[in-house]
Amino acid sequence: MPKISERAVVIPSSPIRKLAPLAVEAKKKGIKIYHLNIGQPDLHSPQTGLDAIQKIDRKVLEYSPSQGFLSYREKLVGYYKKYNIDLSPDDIVVTTGGSEAVLLAFLACLNPGDEIIVTEPSYANYKSFAISAGVRIRSIATSIEDGFALPAVEKFEELINERTKAILICNPNNPTGYLYTRKEMEQIRDLVRKYDLYLISDEVYREFVYTDAPYISACHLQGIEDNVVLIDSVSKRYSECGIRVGALITKNVELRKAVIKFCQARLSPPLLGQIVAEASIDEPEEYTRKVYEEYIERRNCLIEGLNRIPGVYSPTPMGAFYTVAKLPVDDAEKFCSWCLTDFNYEGETVMMAPAAGFYTTPGAGQNQVRIAYVLKKEDLERALFVLEKALKAYPGHCV
Amino acid sequence: MPKISERAVVIPSSPIRKLAPLAVEAKKKGIKIYHLNIGQPDLHSPQTGLDAIQKIDRKVLEYSPSQGFLSYREKLVGYYKKYNIDLSPDDIVVTTGGSEAVLLAFLACLNPGDEIIVTEPSYANYKSFAISAGVRIRSIATSIEDGFALPAVEKFEELINERTKAILICNPNNPTGYLYTRKEMEQIRDLVRKYDLYLISDEVYREFVYTDAPYISACHLQGIEDNVVLIDSVSKRYSECGIRVGALITKNVELRKAVIKFCQARLSPPLLGQIVAEASIDEPEEYTRKVYEEYIERRNCLIEGLNRIPGVYSPTPMGAFYTVAKLPVDDAEKFCSWCLTDFNYEGETVMMAPAAGFYTTPGAGQNQVRIAYVLKKEDLERALFVLEKALKAYPGHCV
Repeated sequence: MPKISERAVVIPSSPIRKLAPLAVEAKKKGIKIYHLNIGQPDLHSPQTGLDAIQKIDRKVLEYSPSQGFLSYREKLVGYYKKYNIDLSPDDIVVTTGGSEAVLLAFLACLNPGDEIIVTEPSYANYKSFAISAGVRIRSIATSIEDGFALPAVEKFEELINERTKAILICNPNNPTGYLYTRKEMEQIRDLVRKYDLYLISDEVYREFVYTDAPYISACHLQGIEDNVVLIDSVSKRYSECGIRVGALITKNVELRKAVIKFCQARLSPPLLGQIVAEASIDEPEEYTRKVYEEYIERRNCLIEGLNRIPGVYSPTPMGAFYTVAKLPVDDAEKFCSWCLTDFNYEGETVMMAPAAGFYTTPGAGQNQVRIAYVLKKEDLERALFVLEKALKAYPGHCV
Repeated sequence: MPKISERAVVIPSSPIRKLAPLAVEAKKKGIKIYHLNIGQPDLHSPQTGLDAIQKIDRKVLEYSPSQGFLSYREKLVGYYKKYNIDLSPDDIVVTTGGSEAVLLAFLACLNPGDEIIVTEPSYANYKSFAISAGVRIRSIATSIEDGFALPAVEKFEELINERTKAILICNPNNPTGYLYTRKEMEQIRDLVRKYDLYLISDEVYREFVYTDAPYISACHLQGIEDNVVLIDSVSKRYSECGIRVGALITKNVELRKAVIKFCQARLSPPLLGQIVAEASIDEPEEYTRKVYEEYIERRNCLIEGLNRIPGVYSPTPMGAFYTVAKLPVDDAEKFCSWCLTDFNYEGETVMMAPAAGFYTTPGAGQNQVRIAYVLKKEDLERALFVLEKALKAYPGHCV
């Protein structure tokens, strides 16, 4: 039997996936699970998008252009304008979810063996895409005590060498909910300019910013237009994770031409998803406002609730719909498994993502979990109650 | 401005894409183009698939499982059974088109620097995926004079070394239309077993086999079950290229687990596409029969017509819906461009894919084109007529 590749050996399973079979078993036993582990919003997708599905009357479900439909890219220009991001349709490459955009950015910007600096904890799948593209992630620790703020510039400079080609940020951040300040973004801009790096900026959560602090996009930074690669997706803002429509955006013409060559190889992004995404842009503003208000309420409910539990600490996330919280446990991975295998309170339990999977540094985040607040408030309140009971009962509890 | 990666420099534009702007200009001048260049069938998608779109009444367009919907994979088992391919739903990983399946196979089976043997001419995008995965394609020439039959086993053995990890075949073949015989498939099986290689077999055209010779799938070969990776797609058989639904199929459990880890990173295949693909399996057999009869007629029309033109030669393709034909021209790429820029007959011209893009060996296939017969018979007849006029008028004509 031939061997699998070395990258296939090292590519990680998602920390959530390891728990999945345990959740299946728990459900079989009739236990109700509050899913705090996933980034799939429960809110409805925009009605304009859903209606667009019914209106499809094509007889041939044919390829769309490799770069994505021009009509969709034209509409996206208007969408970004609302965030003071000035684009032309040419600047936009429609991708198969934000996932593909990340992989394409790595493939087109970095050679195998090149390095990319990422703050940790970070979105777990960046690692997998880095392994696929043969590039090396260099992590800079952020800490829960500082609310996961950007580390000092010197920390970046310590890591920069001749193989360093890019900095990757996620803003607002998954998993921490951190929102970079103007000052931090300007620090990143200066670094990027000084060392002529790519700045790959994943901003799929821009709709979810809960403070009065402004959302500063990498596209707002002046003087580094050719360095910026924006990663985007409609998954979160429209609760349309399944349609697999994202975007890679850059004003760097040479880079964009290269990205499009990779896109030609995979022929086209999903036809039906693009139709839905395009129509979703027409949804009245009220949709976004209501979604936003819902999340504000959920965030407040979750964070207040978490910090009321003895030994638990969570910073207040400024954006996205996650938080990374510290639990009074020996090992969060063990605790999360235990919640599914050995615990229930009145037939209910919680499922969370152990935060270790979001760190590259071994041992980091061992007593932390990522919690997504994509459940309605009543469920969140009950989940918090069940979590508190679980922590009390857990044998590895430590104060 | 930071540099693009080396792989982004070398990844090829599709030969067809180079002609695309010329076609746009020709259309602006009011010239009608017969598109013999594309693999997008003009035939309707199955009505069951189209109806399924209208029936979607989900309120949240959420992620589907990374491996694809179980209900879809269960139905696929029945589909493959009709071709004497015995699978369990677990053997199947649903992918974002056949394209993603090829990339995933390369990533999971081969290390960067490893080699894969492919007959040429071959599907042009294999090259791009090989570049993305950092693997090296070693080409074995097949010749138009032999009808693109499989080269002798010795030719393969000459290329096999310690870096050789896989053989990739496309059967029925794009671009040649060649169908591997039982004897040829058994030769490949023996090679694969002798050197313990992966056999990656792209069989997306299995519905399009026009001779009495049997379609021999890599999955029919006994004793190499753990070596076989089947690449599949609904794009061609259902005229559903745009929905981006394919599959990677293997009985090798370790390999499949690895592939699924890569799939988890990209979260899920397209939700809407899977719904359409699943429903399309229910289309009455008559759909496939009618499509088949249509292509038989088109093939006969095209091949007879081509071979009637002085100086043109095309073998008779046994499958798929392409042929590679030799033209009496100095350079097929120049000729194809010229047809769009400098020629029209009564306001009409033809667009074809220069075959050089399907070869890895420099200079190979210089006077060949790939012609797809995805147009209706009347259009094909007219296109042949226009092609003959073009060849007569072309300054680089040579006999």
